[in-house]
This record gives sequence, structure tokens and C-alpha cells, in this order.
Amino acid sequence: MKITLKDGKVLEYKKPLSVREIAKQISEGLARIAIGGKVDGTLVGLDFVLEKNCSLQIVTTKDVEYTEMFRHTAAHCLAHGIKKVYPNAKFGVGPATDNGFYYDVEFDTPIGADDLAKIEKAIQSVVDANHPIVREVIKKTEALKLFEKANQPYKVELLNGLPKDETITIYKQGDFFDLCRGPHLESTGKIKYFKLTQITGAYWKGDQSNKMLTRIYGVAFEKKSELDEYLQRLEDAKNRDHAKLGRELGIFMTEESIGQGLPLFAPKGAKVMQTLIRWVEDEEAKRGYVLTRTPIIAKSDLYKISGHWEHYRDGMFVLGNNESNYMALRPMTCPFQFAIYNQGTKSYRDLPIRYAETSSLFRNENSGEMHGLIRVRQFTLSDGHIVCTPSQVEAEFDKCLGLTNYLLQALGLEGDVTYRFSKHDPANKEKYIDNPKMWASAEKELKQILDKHKLQYQESVGDAAFYGPKLDIQIKNVWGKEDTIITIQVDMALADRFDMSYIDENGTKQRPMIIHRSSLGCYERTLALLIEKYNGALPLWLAPTQVKVLSLTDRTVTQAEQITADLLAKGVSAEADVRGEKLGYKIREAQLQKIPYMLVVGDKEAESGCVAVRTRKGGDLGVMPYATFEQTVLAQIVDKTKEI
Amino acid sequence: MKITLKDGKVLEYKKPLSVREIAKQISEGLARIAIGGKVDGTLVGLDFVLEKNCSLQIVTTKDVEYTEMFRHTAAHCLAHGIKKVYPNAKFGVGPATDNGFYYDVEFDTPIGADDLAKIEKAIQSVVDANHPIVREVIKKTEALKLFEKANQPYKVELLNGLPKDETITIYKQGDFFDLCRGPHLESTGKIKYFKLTQITGAYWKGDQSNKMLTRIYGVAFEKKSELDEYLQRLEDAKNRDHAKLGRELGIFMTEESIGQGLPLFAPKGAKVMQTLIRWVEDEEAKRGYVLTRTPIIAKSDLYKISGHWEHYRDGMFVLGNNESNYMALRPMTCPFQFAIYNQGTKSYRDLPIRYAETSSLFRNENSGEMHGLIRVRQFTLSDGHIVCTPSQVEAEFDKCLGLTNYLLQALGLEGDVTYRFSKHDPANKEKYIDNPKMWASAEKELKQILDKHKLQYQESVGDAAFYGPKLDIQIKNVWGKEDTIITIQVDMALADRFDMSYIDENGTKQRPMIIHRSSLGCYERTLALLIEKYNGALPLWLAPTQVKVLSLTDRTVTQAEQITADLLAKGVSAEADVRGEKLGYKIREAQLQKIPYMLVVGDKEAESGCVAVRTRKGGDLGVMPYATFEQTVLAQIVDKTKEI
Repeated sequence: MKITLKDGKVLEYKKPLSVREIAKQISEGLARIAIGGKVDGTLVGLDFVLEKNCSLQIVTTKDVEYTEMFRHTAAHCLAHGIKKVYPNAKFGVGPATDNGFYYDVEFDTPIGADDLAKIEKAIQSVVDANHPIVREVIKKTEALKLFEKANQPYKVELLNGLPKDETITIYKQGDFFDLCRGPHLESTGKIKYFKLTQITGAYWKGDQSNKMLTRIYGVAFEKKSELDEYLQRLEDAKNRDHAKLGRELGIFMTEESIGQGLPLFAPKGAKVMQTLIRWVEDEEAKRGYVLTRTPIIAKSDLYKISGHWEHYRDGMFVLGNNESNYMALRPMTCPFQFAIYNQGTKSYRDLPIRYAETSSLFRNENSGEMHGLIRVRQFTLSDGHIVCTPSQVEAEFDKCLGLTNYLLQALGLEGDVTYRFSKHDPANKEKYIDNPKMWASAEKELKQILDKHKLQYQESVGDAAFYGPKLDIQIKNVWGKEDTIITIQVDMALADRFDMSYIDENGTKQRPMIIHRSSLGCYERTLALLIEKYNGALPLWLAPTQVKVLSLTDRTVTQAEQITADLLAKGVSAEADVRGEKLGYKIREAQLQKIPYMLVVGDKEAESGCVAVRTRKGGDLGVMPYATFEQTVLAQIVDKTKEI
Repeated sequence: MKITLKDGKVLEYKKPLSVREIAKQISEGLARIAIGGKVDGTLVGLDFVLEKNCSLQIVTTKDVEYTEMFRHTAAHCLAHGIKKVYPNAKFGVGPATDNGFYYDVEFDTPIGADDLAKIEKAIQSVVDANHPIVREVIKKTEALKLFEKANQPYKVELLNGLPKDETITIYKQGDFFDLCRGPHLESTGKIKYFKLTQITGAYWKGDQSNKMLTRIYGVAFEKKSELDEYLQRLEDAKNRDHAKLGRELGIFMTEESIGQGLPLFAPKGAKVMQTLIRWVEDEEAKRGYVLTRTPIIAKSDLYKISGHWEHYRDGMFVLGNNESNYMALRPMTCPFQFAIYNQGTKSYRDLPIRYAETSSLFRNENSGEMHGLIRVRQFTLSDGHIVCTPSQVEAEFDKCLGLTNYLLQALGLEGDVTYRFSKHDPANKEKYIDNPKMWASAEKELKQILDKHKLQYQESVGDAAFYGPKLDIQIKNVWGKEDTIITIQVDMALADRFDMSYIDENGTKQRPMIIHRSSLGCYERTLALLIEKYNGALPLWLAPTQVKVLSLTDRTVTQAEQITADLLAKGVSAEADVRGEKLGYKIREAQLQKIPYMLVVGDKEAESGCVAVRTRKGGDLGVMPYATFEQTVLAQIVDKTKEI
């Protein structure tokens, strides 16, 4: 048996050996920090026995794989702890996640956040016992008997779903055992610091028609400092969460009788949305875009042409009850803008045509996936499509990126984004238009453009649209979850399906190319990320209330109201606070509302046409003539100044 | 028998007399122009015999009732003519309308517009024959036999629907007879000038589940000049029809695969909509409105609270297939803005709150009712709700009317509107919230407000919303059809249903009053009316392209493009036409597109920084420095100048 190590060295053995033993033979030091191995690229535990020629990398606590094993073992300890408190608990799945781990569990009677403390205590006892974690390979029939006897129907269902000849492994620790591919740490004592963070519902296998299980989330770390740091970040995230701030600042709300994923923008939020939308529409117009305004429902006929009916029907809200009257809320704007393009003959001289629309779109997301303004069922996309000749594609793509970068920069988000080149997954045919040649050429073309732009991008197989590959501009929310905010994509398929054409220089009919693009993405999501980035203190030009005018005494109420009216007339979003409350109270309230400027009008100021200016950061800019302040604030709004 | 005449005079007769005989006894002159009578308010023909005490007004060709009788008789002549050409034709109903008349007919094989000429010829022969028109009272059983024998199943169905003891009258003219309440003119020769104008489909009894009949429309007049004038108006209307102009000017289109009543705004139309919407939103903001932005779908739960589920379900697009998952596209914005109001406690000091939203709404109109941008399935309402204390209602209603009048005036529509006070119909209970007390008080309150405003309004029973009476501001389209463009309404019902409240001066919880209002109505409909009013030549400030810059030679292309860019930078919607076409051709094209200004740039103009300015009306304003033109056009846009 020849074992090839990572550095190329080859070890030879006569008999099977475990990863642990090989690590020991390499060095005692390595063995101490070893937690598993990678055999021909597959992660295994220390107990795993090598029997034939293979490559081996010893995985130590210093490798990234350690984190996943650590979290996965913590998930088992969570289940073990639950079992101690709730002997009848039935277990679903319990994987490691990006941040920690969770376990889905069915309880006899529902449990709540209050019950997490006693589960944490039980986990601590599991950890303290430092049970060795033992891997066992057993036959499927045996495993079935084992889990049936243990009254674990979900595990039995999982087992039944496995191929007949699959190797079944179970992991045991003390009196607890679980069906698991592993690998795991050596013993439960390795889990040092943990915390249960959340309790929610989750459908078994993510399917709404299945039973709703209880999902318990947790985090686990080796060092106390790591846990403390994590909990601090969690606290920060909670405070910065746009859903919390959005409610507190009067940005948006949801309403049980209306439904999940359908946010209602209250006046402050609607005002910010209006500012963003007008800005983007105007920036697009400056760059040669023309607006469209198209319906949000259409007959299924349209989606049959586009391919949505075949590839995306589950994601759509469908109306009607039979083939003759099916309609759907639109998930995309493209076919509507294509219909406008198809009115009248187009010449090469008309191209490129850049269509833009502030478009309401709908996705029938599962209820478990909804999150504030980030993942919703109705959203507003700064959508658009460029129809051009093949030779114009590159320059147009460049302009799309340019516009997007300009907008991100103005919002201060440009440093936060990463790029993803999203390709189709050839193994998942039903998700995509079946045309391997088109995919090969479209992905090649897009890659060339991206490389030319020297973008630092990751490639991601399986994230393409069903009709083409795309560049996704990604950003992380305050919880660390990465989402796409903006997409630009080269489409070689839909012009064909919609029979779009133009007449070229020689009088010949040609297929145009299409770029699907968003300039600022979905406004709801972008607003959520802005709220989180600025901790609710939106830049002056976006702030729903830009100036609060505070009367110091009853005698200055009229002046405060006059100044407010003057500011409003100049297009500054101002509000007066002329209540008979104490000044300190009024200032505190305006600061909590994160209003950029507060103008205090006392007797002296009223007499001299001055205002005492304060900022939401607590800065006192002193007394100045009202005209000076007005000039300043107007200039700062035009300049989109970020620092107030 | 005592007959009381209109002027109060009482005639006494010993035996029954017909209206004709009484007219003769009054005066021979009256008898010559008499065409019927009004007996106790009911219109009857000249043959009608009076047998007991009653009031009588002789109706002459000078009375408005004459027009209806004239048209109704023309409808019979139409049927008579059809019968001559298509002996198997089966007749539905054939009433007089506001403009003329129609008859619904089932033909053995479908007929088309080409067949109208031969029907007109047959009608002419009926008119020329001057058949006397004779009224006969017969028994229901007899009538049934008669129409069964004549193979007229629709008439039989109508007869079967009549109460057992109903007096049945039939009208005979030559070999034609019809089931009819009458009255009619004396003879077919009275119909002098007529024209069949349209052929469409119409469901029997207006019910989609019934058979589709053929509806033939016509007009008829006494004088040739009236017919000619009518046909001229018709021709004008065809040319001014917003659907025709909208297509020609690139305003909007429809697309078979998307569906009826779902217009797509092409770039020119989307631009006008954007201008209108931003203007209205800004005018509302100036008047203290705050924006909301709320979802367009909601669970049925919401509509159950509002009452839409009970009273308006047929008019809504419903999603889902059972009670647990029904949702609907919203037909109104109110419940969504109420949900926002209900967030947090409100004090009397917060009121009035004026919510505005540019709101997409949906009505599941029957396909026969759709018309261009005027009656559609998706539309955009300048919607809004004012929540106020009872004592604020009047002042707020006043402000709503003020805003609406301001907007209509700026658009030049203020002289075209009429007012309708729409009340509920107590005889149609299932259409309305069941609360007679609320209706009485709401209708009284609204009437008082309207009377105080000295509005000239008509009252209309049955046109209220299901939750309250309203003021409808009406306008006629180019075809003479009257539609509501703006509605303002006082609501005493929904605050209760949504449990809305505020705390009054004494700390007591109170129900607020609600005013539902639109400031400019549905943008689609308003745009349609503007297009028709201005014959496509929208006022400068609304024109999607305001200035077209034309190069005279190849040498001035750069200058023309520079001027276009300068105008765009100043916010003027400009386009360059630098094609190598002849100037006359380019000017004609710009005029056809109804672009307010054309700037011609020749060598001389290019050298001197001047432009030669022309208007779409053909006016030549001569050569002027570009700066002068720019100043003028910018001022005219700000001033919303109508005359260019």
C-alpha cells in the first residue's frame, strides 16, 4: 500500500493503518493536532483505516476543514443534549453551517426559546463527560432495525432513501448514536465553548407539504474569546438588522393579514425608495436608456415562449385554474420589453436600444426563506435590457458595469461587493434551456469579457439563469449571509425564442444580442443593505427626514415652522418639532430617528435670522445665518455627501 | 274621466280616448307634432287609450323623449331590415342608447362589417314603405304561441321571465312584429336618415356563460344635416381615439400573448407617465401628503376584513385554490394604508394624516368591457386616504377638491368635467355594507359638503362604493362615453372594520373619519383623455419628446448633436435627427410625431450659434440664438404653457 502525502513524499505499508497511526508515524507533533485526513480528496476521521494506494493529507486544527468537523460534532452534542432532556425527541438532520450548526427535531410538545437554557446545560454535561466518538460501519438492514427500535422515523426515512449498496456509518458517543457520514472529532470534550442562538420552524426536507420540525441553531468555538467575539458580533448584527431598524425608524412593516414577504413601506421608507428610484431612472436616462412601463401579469402563453412556464413555474404566482385561462405574476421583465422591441422593424441604426424599467416582480418564495427586505415575494427591480448587435456587446457590457459601479460608489457600497461568474450546471438539465452549444459559447463570451475587465471573480456552477450565464455582484448582509444585489448577463437564447430581429447594413435580417442587466438591483434589498451598513443613519441625500427644526420656546414656534416651510419649498425634507417638550428631549428623539441635522430656534436665533445647528452624531456646529445653513445643506444633498 | 294637463288645466271626458284624440281636441297644431304622451309620468304612444283619471303631458318632436322613441323605432326598423335579408335571424334585445340604437341578433352563419350595406338597403325599403306602427295588447299565452311559431327563442325566454299578470304588448309594422313595451313613432317613414355604425359581439343578457350574439349598432336622424354632422364627429373621433394615436405615436401597445386590458407603455408613453406621476407626487408632498408603498397582493384575510371578499370578489384576480391559501391582486389601496396607520398609537395631534400612493390596482374586467387605456385590468391610481377627526372632514374634503381642480386646470381639463353624487341602491342590498343608518348619515354628510361647495352635480343611485357614497368627477371620451376620472369619498364604515383609532384631547379612544380620494385618478385613463383632447399633441411639458434637432447638411451633424446633448443636460427631452434625408421629410416626420419644437441647424446657424425654430403647428419662429431658445423652452416647461 503506497500512501502519497501532500508534499509528494510516498510512504509504503504492508498492512492497513488508520489516519491516526500514520500521523503518529510522521511525527508526534502532527498527531497531537491531527483531527482527520483527506483521502483522495475526501474528508475522513482519525479512525478511518487506509487499505489501498491513495493520496493522504493529514487535516489538523489549523486547516479550514477543522471548522466544519468541529461544528458537525457540536451538532451531535446538541442532539445528545436534547435526547437527555427530551427522551422522545425525533431527529431530522443536523449539519454544520457557515456560522455554526443546527439540528431539526420533532418534539412531543412544542418548545420555545425559554427551553434552550436547559438544553445548553445538558450539552455541557455531554461535553464534560468527554465521550469518545466512535465510527461504526454497519449493514443497511442492521441500521434500519437500530433506528426503528430507537423510534427515529426520520432517520429510517433517510436510510430508506439511500442506495442499497451504500456503506452506512453511524457515530456513537456515550449512550447517543446517529446516522452520519462523518467525519467527527475524537471526543465530545473537544467542544469547548458553545451557545444556542435561535429556535425556528423548518419543514422536513424543506418541503411545505411535510411536517414542520423545530430547528435549533447554535455556535461552538475552541476558545472563549472566539465565542465572546461571536456573541458581540451577533449583538451588533441584531442592532444593525434592517428589519429591527426598519421598524424602529418607520421604514417598513409587515402585516399578518397581508402575508409574509410582502413588506409595506411606511412614509419614511417610501420616501427613501422614491429618492433612490428617481435617482436611478435619471442616471439611466443620462446614459441613453429609454423607459418602459409594462404589466405585471400576463397569460401563460407569454411564459411558454420565454421558457419560464417550463423552467420556472414553481417560482411563479399562477392565477386561473386551467390551460385556457392561466396567467402569472411576472418573475422577470424581459419578455415584456421584448414585446415592445418587436413593435415595428428595427434597423442596425436603431441599435443599441437600452430599455429600463422600475419593475415590480414576484417570486413565490417558501415561507422559511423570507427575510425582511432582503428576500421577499414582491420586489422592485431597476431592470433593463440592452438589445444590440454582436459587435456592440462588449462596449455595452462595459457601460453596464460602469453605471453599476457609479451607483455603488455614490452609495458607499463599492468596497463591499464581490463578483461571481454564475454558470449553468450540465448535471441539472431540467433547470436550463437545452442547448449545450449555446451554453458553451455564452459562457466563453462572458468569461472573456470578465477577464478583460480584470474582475476578481469566483466561478459558481449552477447559479446561471435558465437562459444564460451571468455576472452576479454579491454583498454580505449584517448576518454574514451573501446575496446577489446586481446581475449583468449576456443572453444568446431569448432573442431566438421571441423571434427578435434587426436589418443589418446589407439589408439582411439578423438576430440581435441581449444584455439583461440591473443597475442597482432590487431596491428593497439595496435599501436593507444600506440600512445595515449605515446603522440606520442613511446618508443625508437619502435620509427620509433631512432636517428637524426644533423650537426652543413657545415664542419661536412660528419661526421654526417658517424655516421648515422654507426648507420644504427648496426640496429639503424637513419637519418641525414645536411641541412644548424640553429641548434635550426633542434633540434625543431626533437623534434616535437618525435625522442628519437639527436646527434649534431660540429667541436670539429668531431675532437674528439664525439657527443653532447640530448633527445626529452629536456635533454642535454652532449658530449660523439660516441662509448659510440652507446653502450648505443643498450643496451637500447635490454632492451626496456621506459624512454628516 | 278627468285628465289633468301639464299646465294644470283639467279636461273631462265621458268615454275612453287615445292620446292622439286628446291632442287633436287640444289643437290641430299640437296633434301634428305630437308623437306620444306621458301618462302619470310613463311614456306611451299616440295610440294609447286613457280610461281613468290621470295626468297627461303630450310629448312632441320638440321634447327630449322624442329622441328615445325615434331611436327605439329605428331599432325596430333595423330588425325588420335584418329579417328581410336573413329570414332565420333570431332576435335578442334592441334598445335605444345615448347615441343611437343597437339590436342583438343570432345569425345562422356569422356576418361581418361587409354585410351592413345590404342590411341598410333593406332598412331603407322598410322606411320607404312607411308602414304604420301598431300597438297590440295580447295575453301572455297568446304571445308565447306567436313567438314560438316565429322561431324566436330569445323572445320566448324574455316572455317566460315576465310576471304572469304582466300586460304584454307587441308592435307590428308590415310583416314584422316585436315584443316591446314601446312607445314608438306612428310609422316607419318617420325614420329619415340612418346609418349602421358598428358590428360587435355581445353575450345574451351580458352573461359570459350565455351564447355570443351579434350586436349591430346604428344611428338615425330626422335631418340629413344631423346625420352628416354625426358622421363627421365619428370620423373625428376615430382619428382622435387615443388607442389609434397611442399606437401611432409610440405611447402604448397591447400584445396578444400578454392579454387584453394589459397595456404596455412604450418609451414615449412611459416618459409621459413618469412626468405625470412625479408631478402629482410632488404636488401632493407640497400639500402635506406622505407617501406609502405597499404590496399589490394580499391574503384573503385582509379582504375579508375590508369586505371586498364578500362584496367584490368577482372583480378581483384571485390566486390559490382553497381557503387556506387564497390571495388576491388588490383592487384598492385602502386596507394597506390602514395597516400602516394602525402601526403605533395615534393622537389627535397627529391628525390629519394624508397618505398618498402611486398604486397599481387590478380589476378583473370582462373582455367585452376593455377599451384602450380607459378600461383596463391593471392600472395606476394616484390613490390616497386622509385619516382625520370628524371636525376636520369638511376642510380636508375642500383641500382634496382644491388639489384635484389645480391638477385638472394645469392639464386644461377643468372645463370638461361634470360632477356626480353617487349613492347606494337600497334595493340592491348584497352590493353594499348592510348598515342603513351609516348610509343615511354618510350620504347626508356628503350632500351637505357638496351643496356647500355649490357644485353642479347629478345624483346617481347605485354608483356608490360598497362601503360609502362618493363624489365622482366625470369626463366624456371622444366617443361620448362618460367615465369617472376622479373620486372623493367620505367613509364612515372602514375605520370600524379595521379597528382604527386615535386618542382625543381627553385621552379617550375615538374612531377617525376617512376620506378616500384620488388626486388625478387613474393615470392610464387620464392620459387617454389628454391624448384625445389634444389630438396627440400633448402640452409641451408633457410631450415625451419636446424638441427635435434637425441637421440641414452633413456639415451640421455635430452641432445638431451638441445642441441635443445641451438640451438633455438641462432636462429638456430632446432628440437629434441627423439622417441624410431631405429637411422637408424630416420636418414632416417630426410634425407627425407631434413634437412641439423643431430646431433646424444649417451652416449659417451653426456658425452663429443660432437655431431656426419651427413649431408642430407649422409656425416658423425664425432664427434665434440657441441660448434664447433654451431660456424660452425651459420657462414654458416650468409654466406648463399649453399653447405651442
